[in-house]
Amino acid sequence: MERHINGVKSSESQALVAEPEKCSPAGSFDVNSSTADEQVAESFIRQAMEIIVDEAVKKATNVQEKVCEWHSPEQLKKLLDLELRDGGEAESEILQRCRDAIRYSVKTSHPRFFNQLYAGMEPYSMVASFIAEAVKTNLYTYEVAPVFTLMEDAVLRKMIKVIGWEEGGDGIFNPGGSLSNMYAVNLARYRYCPDFKEVGMFSAPRLVILTSQECHYSISKGAALMGIGTKNVYTVPTDERGRMIPSALEEKIMLAKSEGAVPFMVNATAGTTVLGAFDPIDEIADICEKHNLWLHVDACWGGAAIMSKKHKHLLKGIHRVDSVAWNPHKMLMASLQCSAFLVRDKTSLLQHCHSARASYLFQQDKFYDVSYDTGDKSVQCSRKPDAFKFWLMWKALGSRELEQRVDRALAMARYLAEEIKKREGFRLVLEVAPVVKQRMMKKGSMMVGYQPLGEKANFFRMVVISPQVSRQDLDFVLNEIHNLGKDL
Amino acid sequence: MERHINGVKSSESQALVAEPEKCSPAGSFDVNSSTADEQVAESFIRQAMEIIVDEAVKKATNVQEKVCEWHSPEQLKKLLDLELRDGGEAESEILQRCRDAIRYSVKTSHPRFFNQLYAGMEPYSMVASFIAEAVKTNLYTYEVAPVFTLMEDAVLRKMIKVIGWEEGGDGIFNPGGSLSNMYAVNLARYRYCPDFKEVGMFSAPRLVILTSQECHYSISKGAALMGIGTKNVYTVPTDERGRMIPSALEEKIMLAKSEGAVPFMVNATAGTTVLGAFDPIDEIADICEKHNLWLHVDACWGGAAIMSKKHKHLLKGIHRVDSVAWNPHKMLMASLQCSAFLVRDKTSLLQHCHSARASYLFQQDKFYDVSYDTGDKSVQCSRKPDAFKFWLMWKALGSRELEQRVDRALAMARYLAEEIKKREGFRLVLEVAPVVKQRMMKKGSMMVGYQPLGEKANFFRMVVISPQVSRQDLDFVLNEIHNLGKDL
Repeated sequence: MERHINGVKSSESQALVAEPEKCSPAGSFDVNSSTADEQVAESFIRQAMEIIVDEAVKKATNVQEKVCEWHSPEQLKKLLDLELRDGGEAESEILQRCRDAIRYSVKTSHPRFFNQLYAGMEPYSMVASFIAEAVKTNLYTYEVAPVFTLMEDAVLRKMIKVIGWEEGGDGIFNPGGSLSNMYAVNLARYRYCPDFKEVGMFSAPRLVILTSQECHYSISKGAALMGIGTKNVYTVPTDERGRMIPSALEEKIMLAKSEGAVPFMVNATAGTTVLGAFDPIDEIADICEKHNLWLHVDACWGGAAIMSKKHKHLLKGIHRVDSVAWNPHKMLMASLQCSAFLVRDKTSLLQHCHSARASYLFQQDKFYDVSYDTGDKSVQCSRKPDAFKFWLMWKALGSRELEQRVDRALAMARYLAEEIKKREGFRLVLEVAPVVKQRMMKKGSMMVGYQPLGEKANFFRMVVISPQVSRQDLDFVLNEIHNLGKDL
Repeated sequence: MERHINGVKSSESQALVAEPEKCSPAGSFDVNSSTADEQVAESFIRQAMEIIVDEAVKKATNVQEKVCEWHSPEQLKKLLDLELRDGGEAESEILQRCRDAIRYSVKTSHPRFFNQLYAGMEPYSMVASFIAEAVKTNLYTYEVAPVFTLMEDAVLRKMIKVIGWEEGGDGIFNPGGSLSNMYAVNLARYRYCPDFKEVGMFSAPRLVILTSQECHYSISKGAALMGIGTKNVYTVPTDERGRMIPSALEEKIMLAKSEGAVPFMVNATAGTTVLGAFDPIDEIADICEKHNLWLHVDACWGGAAIMSKKHKHLLKGIHRVDSVAWNPHKMLMASLQCSAFLVRDKTSLLQHCHSARASYLFQQDKFYDVSYDTGDKSVQCSRKPDAFKFWLMWKALGSRELEQRVDRALAMARYLAEEIKKREGFRLVLEVAPVVKQRMMKKGSMMVGYQPLGEKANFFRMVVISPQVSRQDLDFVLNEIHNLGKDL
């Protein structure tokens, strides 16, 4: 039987025919045979994998290499030749495109990448993500995703145990922490009034969400998307370290009530985006209990601290909250994306809130226990098996090594803070952050994000996560900021 | 400098030390050095890649192998040993877990997988997804995602051109078609009344979405999430082929208005989930123009037909609509997930509707053109570079080969329909679909989904996409259904 795919012809019993046939006229295909050529595909995938290991693993994590090779959008467009044409390209050209895509991408695994709330290379999680891509699994039914359905369940149960919800709970992995936070808003609203799901909020009283002024912007985005409105997100003042002030929370709750509005949820943040502050969960939980409010903790960034005996006190009281968003792709270094939404409820609130009971997926006359069909817990339909990335690395490292990672990252951050205190003049340098940033990018020596905060000028936000980072790297950062900015 | 990660010690100048140190006591780490061992990581990744090629590429696409190896949830839990423990596991154990994860997963790339609206193995797209995972890119700023920002832009422009929006447009790739459809609802609502973003919908008139009774369930899920309510999704009757009846649409619009409600958008479906029907877009566009309604087309499944000169008539009128959701991961076989939301608007509606202007990401004093920072067009924060999967395969295949794929898939579907007509008694067999399904899963011979429709009994929904499928495979399906069900 002759088989051809992607323009390269072959037959099962013969060696490959090298002549490409990209330009065969439309309608010339033969339905009698498959067009797949697994040998050509296999050879291409093998060559591409070599490139990935050399360029995206070895070179990208090598401290001697650049973090980025900066080009302006207009320059880079020329280098990449982005246009999509009628004809295809040969394998060798496509392999070069793979090399280029890696070359001009920022090396987020590089030891001197401190620009985002993720960093470093985690080989187990990376391999799990390759497998997830290769097997093309969609996580809506046990039937089509038996392995990953069970793994997600196992990971969620373990995370729930670590949080300390002794009665158990429920959860789901989502494409990012923003969606996990939105799930919390939707569940809190559903618990307050399940009818909104059917009739909408058109005759509802004005609902109010309370959160600190330092919270992640997904709370506002969620309020806008869900028809609640960004003005109905009441922000609570924080102390000098960026933590929500509980008495101020209670004042805002009373304010909303006095206006005739209905506060229905509080979002506490465990690890704020800019300062890494942890809101006092225990005290906030007292207030939520008193006023019967859903308490959600956005622990996307700081949730990992709960793995550490030394640092778990930062999340004291988390066993009392209603829901948690926690991204293992941040401090625990799982591959992007890996974001869990966890809920303490045991009455299938997650399913009731989101179910649509599509008959083509969730047939009730299946031959196995359909409670394993988790798709109706999701807002989406297609959903990636992100839990596998965390499961495999947890299996490989064990809880103890995960704990070590957290302890190490926080020790590194402490080291950096001490070093900055020792260096005179560092505060001055920070006022010229945008220029220093431009210089480090063009040089490709490192990447650190900057931003203003309240009345403070632009400052660099150093994010220290990866075990690949050493004290030398942090010393380098301080010296480099000094050197890049000393003439300013 | 000594380096150790993942429990395997080594030094830069020495060969690897084999003795694992998984159980080192907490606090014993050395902040003076990195813990990364790139050699150990590299070796592990290489071994895992071999497994992926052998098991998830070669074996998974081999028609002689099973589509699935069925085990009940309880059996599979035992086989997988899911528990997460304090200690880690050795590399060899983790590699075996990789093999098992692939082995017990459903082979969605297998020529006899017809169970979902995606199928087959696309090597270019698969490699692109590996690269995206390896470089760990988040698509919110040009600074951190220069390559993929430009590629997304190029792919979106090309898709917009194919659709026929001559003035251009805007767009974004999302984690799944459900979210793309929800983006449409949110934009339509924002255009109707931008104030909802800030103040919510508490004093708004009742909003109504119109869609056919055969539409995807994400329209209802979106209405629930956005505070509109599932009862305010008015379903329009369809004809015998599953296509929306335009006159019935207009009746429903008038009904909503007579109730004092505000219809604000119509969702047309190009390729319904169950029957693959295409709503008559041109006629629906006339009605939407007359009533000033946002017209969205859910072309997640059928959008690919626009690539084909022979079949693009199915989407006649799409150049007139306001927005389109189109999933290249379905009929065009891009890796999961690859879903584009496209909007005809040229006034930055997408950005205005979703922006939150987070100061830590979207600094306005950057040294490059910040219009390339696309993160504020998104509802999420983290976002994967899914466009790259489509870009690379398009580069490799060219538009002509993509057109061939569509033509071939639709020719295959036609062949199957003709064959079914020839076979007497086939309708009878379909009434026992759940039992036949159970038998095919346990045998692992193929996977086809079934479901009821209206008053019809359960029937098998054959999804034919992949160029790897031959006429022999389709004949096999018919024979196998006959054989599995002949005693019933």
